[in-house]
Amino acid sequence: MQPLAYVNGSYVAQHEASVPVTDRGFLFGDGVYEVTCVIDGRMVDNDLHLERLQRSLGETRIALPEPLARIRAIQHELIRANDLREGLVYLQISRGAPAGRDYPFPPATVAPTLVMFTQAKTIVDAPVATRGLKVKTFPDLRWARRDIKSVNLLAQVLAKQAAAEAGCDEAWLLDGGMVTEGGSSTAYIVTADDIIVTRPKSTATLAGCTRAALDRLVAGRGPRLEERPFSLAEALAAREAFATSATTLVAAVVEIDGVAIGEGRPGPVATALRRLYIEAARSP
Amino acid sequence: MQPLAYVNGSYVAQHEASVPVTDRGFLFGDGVYEVTCVIDGRMVDNDLHLERLQRSLGETRIALPEPLARIRAIQHELIRANDLREGLVYLQISRGAPAGRDYPFPPATVAPTLVMFTQAKTIVDAPVATRGLKVKTFPDLRWARRDIKSVNLLAQVLAKQAAAEAGCDEAWLLDGGMVTEGGSSTAYIVTADDIIVTRPKSTATLAGCTRAALDRLVAGRGPRLEERPFSLAEALAAREAFATSATTLVAAVVEIDGVAIGEGRPGPVATALRRLYIEAARSP
Repeated sequence: MQPLAYVNGSYVAQHEASVPVTDRGFLFGDGVYEVTCVIDGRMVDNDLHLERLQRSLGETRIALPEPLARIRAIQHELIRANDLREGLVYLQISRGAPAGRDYPFPPATVAPTLVMFTQAKTIVDAPVATRGLKVKTFPDLRWARRDIKSVNLLAQVLAKQAAAEAGCDEAWLLDGGMVTEGGSSTAYIVTADDIIVTRPKSTATLAGCTRAALDRLVAGRGPRLEERPFSLAEALAAREAFATSATTLVAAVVEIDGVAIGEGRPGPVATALRRLYIEAARSP
Repeated sequence: MQPLAYVNGSYVAQHEASVPVTDRGFLFGDGVYEVTCVIDGRMVDNDLHLERLQRSLGETRIALPEPLARIRAIQHELIRANDLREGLVYLQISRGAPAGRDYPFPPATVAPTLVMFTQAKTIVDAPVATRGLKVKTFPDLRWARRDIKSVNLLAQVLAKQAAAEAGCDEAWLLDGGMVTEGGSSTAYIVTADDIIVTRPKSTATLAGCTRAALDRLVAGRGPRLEERPFSLAEALAAREAFATSATTLVAAVVEIDGVAIGEGRPGPVATALRRLYIEAARSP
């Protein structure tokens, strides 16, 4: 069976799903997106993703093309139709497809483009769960509004490609010696006195939904969380390091630029947080 | 007659030209582009554009999908088929459309996407030729590799939209009080002692093809050109200001943030350079 995708009101075979070449997503990267994880056929933290989607749309002044309830219904329908048990639902909204190319926003008669598709992927038992992530650092080349989840992702593509070529799973982006975040994940370290450190929210990073969910889960449970920038040097000397994202969930970082972090295998904090997160995701 | 576009080997009606939703240009802004001006049915400075295209492809490691001679032939064919006398030929190459979404480069079996279309536009007698451009400044939010002509253009879209809403024609981007360049043009001022000033080439700006062509035209002809950054304050106090781009050619800037530049109408240097450039473009 061919998996279905959704494009502007229609369900179509994913390999036939297309957008006009004048779509502003294609010509200008003028669009925003969200990736929601699916485990046991159910979406994880989808409300947080739709909340962030609305924020990205607001900051870029792209209209919401369908009510949120309708978007949720399409997500559910794609998961059902594609019989997706584990993987992700991808959702992108661009500023529509006018007849030609011009920088300023098109007239309001040009409707935004809504594209959604699913992708099967091993999430819970992904190899990184047991072996941990290898990370390569890369300069943070991104624009000044990293808090907007836009499809201007070329800097991330180049960083994650460099990581892949070095045999690594993720890139950590460096700005003046400080780690901003991963190529597609939030970056954390655990200090010698067991404090979890991650960068405070700002325009320098994307506010991670998995991070927000994890914050709620750990609140009052023990591990102390400190929001401050941390350096690569501090990360290399950390007791543990880990990353969160919609599809890696919580994953230990066991190596940065070839240097083992802690004991070079997933540490107790990252392992416990991953378990906690998956339990919460699987609870009804 | 419906204008034709070109997509991966086929000529199709432009309003039916499309790319798969998994095209990396759409999902990641993972593509580069060029705009070549057409005057009297002939392309202007196209060799410079194809040279810069190759550089952008090299820096992003996207393969050239067709030999340059073939790309030139398609440009000519679109101009002929669409009976384009004045306007532009748009060309975009993205890193292709794999079956799904993943950051690292797809396997080499995934061919890059080549899209081309034309757009009719008044160029030589555009209103800005006589009235000049009004400019609004905007923070330069762009990434660190502005020398690559990629479709990660959301910062430019937001800047040019802000300019349009202020009744202006172009945005000038500011980084620490200095003008980097226009939203889609190179920025120049003419000082009180008649020196033309524009920023030197670096990763902070795109190397303009029209600028390069103009450099050659003015070499040894009188006006002195100095390559150095200039501030907004200096621009506001300048004798003249102007911009170059493929489709505005050379256009005087008569106002910045509501402040008249020089006498508030196109000055002699910008006017002479525009005439010189158009003469060269029209000479066989």
